[in-house]
Amino acid sequence: MPEGNPVRVPDDGLTTRARRNTPVLAVHTGDGKGKSTAAFGMALRAWNAGLRVAVFQFVKSAKWKVGEEAAFGHLGRLHDEHGVGGAVEWHKMGAGWSWTRKAGSEVDHAAAAADGWAEIARRLAAQRHDFYVLDEFTYPLAWGWVDVDEVVEALTARPGHQHVVITGRNAPARLLDAADLVTEMTKVKHPMDAGRKGQKGIEW
Amino acid sequence: MPEGNPVRVPDDGLTTRARRNTPVLAVHTGDGKGKSTAAFGMALRAWNAGLRVAVFQFVKSAKWKVGEEAAFGHLGRLHDEHGVGGAVEWHKMGAGWSWTRKAGSEVDHAAAAADGWAEIARRLAAQRHDFYVLDEFTYPLAWGWVDVDEVVEALTARPGHQHVVITGRNAPARLLDAADLVTEMTKVKHPMDAGRKGQKGIEW
Repeated sequence: MPEGNPVRVPDDGLTTRARRNTPVLAVHTGDGKGKSTAAFGMALRAWNAGLRVAVFQFVKSAKWKVGEEAAFGHLGRLHDEHGVGGAVEWHKMGAGWSWTRKAGSEVDHAAAAADGWAEIARRLAAQRHDFYVLDEFTYPLAWGWVDVDEVVEALTARPGHQHVVITGRNAPARLLDAADLVTEMTKVKHPMDAGRKGQKGIEW
Repeated sequence: MPEGNPVRVPDDGLTTRARRNTPVLAVHTGDGKGKSTAAFGMALRAWNAGLRVAVFQFVKSAKWKVGEEAAFGHLGRLHDEHGVGGAVEWHKMGAGWSWTRKAGSEVDHAAAAADGWAEIARRLAAQRHDFYVLDEFTYPLAWGWVDVDEVVEALTARPGHQHVVITGRNAPARLLDAADLVTEMTKVKHPMDAGRKGQKGIEW
């Protein structure tokens, strides 16, 4: 049940306090469910701790994860109106990011993904948020839309105390190497295998 | 990115609508992080869909997952005071369940776990909630504190449309057989391996 204490103490010259306060770069990968869901669970915990949470959804469809977006909308309003928890921002690529507002549905997904990463890199440099979810970000990396080396460099060099969680299948090896926490979600059994479809409250 | 459509349609005589509305029994197991976190992420989505959420923590320490408990406390108040989302109940074994209030810390953990399951079985029969998280419930099962066959029977026969998510390592095979959705979280890399300790907003 408990995750326990560190099995060994590294010879890195850091005090326990400094080491404890090292910000986390986590990757949730694998072909199973729960990669994004666990990231949003972490974001919920971060929100509760008063951290400024920002979610960036690198997805094509604006219809995905509307339930999570709505729930974090409520959490963000609790912060804004009652001072409870942390601030929340939720951005999705959809047909262009909220800060670009490109017209129409004829958006270039590769360019949109690159725009999204460029904005995240600016925010990391500015320490704009405390807890970032880069949801489904492994896909633009895998497809070459965003340069893996540039991402690893920016993440590794990020200033201050910013946590980053990246989700998606087929995470590049260089990203896994740079991560502190890597969890692989493996599908053992899924209702869709038995012909079921997704349902409200469970799948979205 | 999308999970896609069913690969085959089963010959079970159900309409797509009936099949879609089959309640889910999910198990998150494996030695990696994210089992409980993904369950709470699912509970967040269920809450947003207006489902009545109940969490039962089969843990010895009352100090675990206080961040999640606090966050769901806020969500429950949003429901109670503003009609947003679903109702939330959060029960933890700790030094005895809230409905038993046994005195002192000299609680018998095996008896407490059995009491917890008996209460859940009553609630399932009464269709008291729509979405149950049985957190760390695999341990009392593995230790023989709660009878696996009895649990599988009660879950399989549960009436109405109640979703159940069970988390913990070493889930019994009979439980996995009965589940619709099984995900294994595998630890690939963890900061504690490098001597780090948990930190607020990330681990709790």
